[in-house]
Amino acid sequence: MAPKAAKFDIKTPKGTKDWDGADMVIREKIFSTITDVFKRHGGTTIDTPVFELKEILAGKYGEDSKLIYDLADQGGELCSLRYDLTVPFARYLAMNKDITSIKRYHIAKVYRRDQPAVSKGRMREFVSCLFFDIAGVYDPMIPDAEIICIINEVFDSLGWKGTYTIKLNTRKILDGIFQVCGVPEPMLRPVSSAVDKLDKMPWEDVRKEMVDEKGLDPAIADKIGESWVVLKGQRDLLEKLQADEELSANESMKQGMADLDQLFTILEYFDAMHTVSFDLSLARGVFYYTGVIYEVVTEGSAPAVSASQAAAEPAAKSSKKKGPKSADPDADRSDDPTLGIGSVAAGGRYDNLVGMFSGKTQVPCVGISFGIDRIFSITKARMAAQKATVKPRKNDVDIFVMAFGGGKDFTGLLKERSQVCTRLWNAGIKAEFLYKVKPKLPAQFKAAEQNGVPFALILGEDELAQGKVRIKEMGLASDHPLKEGELISFENLEDEVQQRLTLKKQLDSITREAAGLRVVHGIKGEDVQVSTSDSTTPVPMNAATSSSTSAPAAEVAERTAEEKPAEAPSS
Amino acid sequence: MAPKAAKFDIKTPKGTKDWDGADMVIREKIFSTITDVFKRHGGTTIDTPVFELKEILAGKYGEDSKLIYDLADQGGELCSLRYDLTVPFARYLAMNKDITSIKRYHIAKVYRRDQPAVSKGRMREFVSCLFFDIAGVYDPMIPDAEIICIINEVFDSLGWKGTYTIKLNTRKILDGIFQVCGVPEPMLRPVSSAVDKLDKMPWEDVRKEMVDEKGLDPAIADKIGESWVVLKGQRDLLEKLQADEELSANESMKQGMADLDQLFTILEYFDAMHTVSFDLSLARGVFYYTGVIYEVVTEGSAPAVSASQAAAEPAAKSSKKKGPKSADPDADRSDDPTLGIGSVAAGGRYDNLVGMFSGKTQVPCVGISFGIDRIFSITKARMAAQKATVKPRKNDVDIFVMAFGGGKDFTGLLKERSQVCTRLWNAGIKAEFLYKVKPKLPAQFKAAEQNGVPFALILGEDELAQGKVRIKEMGLASDHPLKEGELISFENLEDEVQQRLTLKKQLDSITREAAGLRVVHGIKGEDVQVSTSDSTTPVPMNAATSSSTSAPAAEVAERTAEEKPAEAPSS
Repeated sequence: MAPKAAKFDIKTPKGTKDWDGADMVIREKIFSTITDVFKRHGGTTIDTPVFELKEILAGKYGEDSKLIYDLADQGGELCSLRYDLTVPFARYLAMNKDITSIKRYHIAKVYRRDQPAVSKGRMREFVSCLFFDIAGVYDPMIPDAEIICIINEVFDSLGWKGTYTIKLNTRKILDGIFQVCGVPEPMLRPVSSAVDKLDKMPWEDVRKEMVDEKGLDPAIADKIGESWVVLKGQRDLLEKLQADEELSANESMKQGMADLDQLFTILEYFDAMHTVSFDLSLARGVFYYTGVIYEVVTEGSAPAVSASQAAAEPAAKSSKKKGPKSADPDADRSDDPTLGIGSVAAGGRYDNLVGMFSGKTQVPCVGISFGIDRIFSITKARMAAQKATVKPRKNDVDIFVMAFGGGKDFTGLLKERSQVCTRLWNAGIKAEFLYKVKPKLPAQFKAAEQNGVPFALILGEDELAQGKVRIKEMGLASDHPLKEGELISFENLEDEVQQRLTLKKQLDSITREAAGLRVVHGIKGEDVQVSTSDSTTPVPMNAATSSSTSAPAAEVAERTAEEKPAEAPSS
Repeated sequence: MAPKAAKFDIKTPKGTKDWDGADMVIREKIFSTITDVFKRHGGTTIDTPVFELKEILAGKYGEDSKLIYDLADQGGELCSLRYDLTVPFARYLAMNKDITSIKRYHIAKVYRRDQPAVSKGRMREFVSCLFFDIAGVYDPMIPDAEIICIINEVFDSLGWKGTYTIKLNTRKILDGIFQVCGVPEPMLRPVSSAVDKLDKMPWEDVRKEMVDEKGLDPAIADKIGESWVVLKGQRDLLEKLQADEELSANESMKQGMADLDQLFTILEYFDAMHTVSFDLSLARGVFYYTGVIYEVVTEGSAPAVSASQAAAEPAAKSSKKKGPKSADPDADRSDDPTLGIGSVAAGGRYDNLVGMFSGKTQVPCVGISFGIDRIFSITKARMAAQKATVKPRKNDVDIFVMAFGGGKDFTGLLKERSQVCTRLWNAGIKAEFLYKVKPKLPAQFKAAEQNGVPFALILGEDELAQGKVRIKEMGLASDHPLKEGELISFENLEDEVQQRLTLKKQLDSITREAAGLRVVHGIKGEDVQVSTSDSTTPVPMNAATSSSTSAPAAEVAERTAEEKPAEAPSS
């Protein structure tokens, strides 16, 4: 079939992206860091389908329901792409009545037809979320406190210590305040949705939404704004609420305050209170939360300027003449100053969601979701601020199998290279060779160096005739006694290679321990290579860390400009 | 918000399923087994979005294009769920012109609106596929041979040695035979699609499709059927083709035969020829293949009976009075005898697909995809045939932190349990405790035993006053000297626990090495527990393997019927 050029733009759909190279390495590292925390707390993983029956998702997400992606009606059932992993989890528990308690985690993509801002990690295909939930009937606030603990462990493990805040509130206190201020019962959720926007817009705009759009009595709106919802604190704020007679008389307030009292006590046991900000403006948009709610924010979460500020300061408009709200809903809003990264994790208690599916059977749940794209964007931004770029290895290959020789009688040793690779693969050793019948030695060294492969195994007709092959560690100093490699037995080559790999691993590990394990924003020195942009010589992220790959990778980086790899002997 | 019972069926969409428990453990094991092989061969992973622009997928899949899932038109771009990971990979290469060679792998779900047969692993949401592709300009057939090698390694690693066949052909030979038989050029692909069905229906039905549906001259159809396409072999068949003067004169045949000659030679180097069946009936439906094509079949791949047999034998109809083709396209066809599991892996060379997107730039590719659902279904069926059921641990927790005490003064030690867990988590130790303020000791032991947790750490007021806590290994024999546990220092408890975990791991490892590592269909003894259904006592899959979890897990299974866990002292 002859190739025909496509007549349309070759790209990914708006708000989505491909992950590869260094980004993939960083993302995988974020995944494994977080799942390690989940496993430490007894998590088990389940996997639900990417689409659900449309009815399952209906009525769960409040004002955001309009962001749900539907599948086309091609006959049969009507389905929608999942919007989060919470509703599918509740559906799963409702279907599996024998499961009355579980700690589950789930890494997966969720789908929201939001206006994208890709560089801020706001995707349509939220490339990945990590959800952790604890389901089961337990004494109050103990699982809730462990979730807060997990949040701290996750961000501390990512190297964010001291740079994040867990905003925390409960639906019961929020509803109590609204009731005391005089909000009618059917208005509780709409008013709550408006208050939730206080992190993105000033009180005047929120008040406007309540009064003009939602028809709340202006006097009640003013009472809400002037009284409680703007307050933040910890136990001091709780004590202030408890001291207020009007509030303390409200039933919902009473329950909420008792809950928080217990929660704060357990969080003190866990030594996990220092990151918590009890924030009465936190409301969370979705409908299904029933108790404690929380949201993790960090530098960059809030917008640089508010929408009304942006409107008042036309000079601040971008040179592209795009207002903060572009007319094209598909346009990428990465440069929009009225849009922050938003929260990097969020969750809460949802005791009634399973019952919405199962009828009678209730399974109380509390959970948290981590927005990996946003965490990734912040990690990248911080690395860029440090003028650091990441140069990961393309793969983890241990050894590159090469043929040495030349001239008209040179066979290329394809048979021998194939057989040696087969033996290495069978021994569990990661091996590659160049897919050429008669490869040149420099080309083979170049391929090995480009991937930072730590060892080369060089086959030559003469050595093979003597039952030998040459093994050479890449990246040795020019005066190293083994710079030219060693002859080893062809018969035992698997063992010989394995011994050297093990030894190298041990030596690297000792060096690393001696140097201490430096972690830059959760990415450890042995995972990625960092070069400072104001220096011509790339250095590993942890210069003292002689990881199994750092030396050859650095050499390659130095040499990519040269035609002939420095390691290649003339053939 | 009060729970309201849903008024519709709570279920997953047809052709999809939730993965959890033992199934999840088996599936994860299949994933890691296969990705280990990919990494051994230098694979690197990329991740592309779950949906692509509709235009990207158009015109790539031949007759199967009707199975593509579209997203609803909600404004903006028109998108479809990916049908495979090959076309998105080609789109990725076309967008990233600096990447001229890569070995990539990708685990992900793909989506096909096929009639589902869930128990045979035929899903709509093919829950997961593993793709491996080698892209780049290389000498002929070397990467193609390595893919065959990888197929062998994957299925051998899964414990399928001797039970699978790699059916192999090339488009060039197939087209050459059709040309020699007189098939006009525009009919090559339609005729090829018909021939591809020879594994599902007898020649008469295929002939009928060619002549009646596709309008092929009956004489040409007969020539195809009587001549070559029914033949199978290895090098012998290639030599037979080479010996035929009429075939050898055809240009496409010549190229195809030279390719296979070289491929078979390299496969012999790789010691990978024994599983290959050169099968002239293999055609593969999709349009984008240009060279070697292959498909892996195993017992159960082919249908038990053909559709025409089923029609001729009405007595064989199922008691549900469903014919082999149900009127409802959504109905599950798991019981349909005319439907086999199909191939468990398939792929081929596609040299022009990247060029279809990029115009000029060509990147030749060859790849393979493994159908994890089908591999999973066969694994499960084989385990069932051996009357084996799988009882995995719910999680990997190392130690369960308990409070010992009772009476009216018992505080429950929630503070101490929280603090101890925090210390253990900070030390990287996987720990749990019961979410009760005043838990009873038997309930705590029961929770630990249900998850097969290997150690218990028991806090008591008296011991704490002396700076001590009790650690107890679960599952020790009743006469074991440490059956009642040991008192260790509270101050150094992290170290004390870590030492015991390390020691247990070492002992288990030695026992395992001594016993040899028995693998049942790729699932190792330490991963899952198997109980034989005709015995009341569950035994670990590898009875000689004293894995870190087997003993307690077995005890739990023995004891779940009892009210009081056997390990719990009276409190």
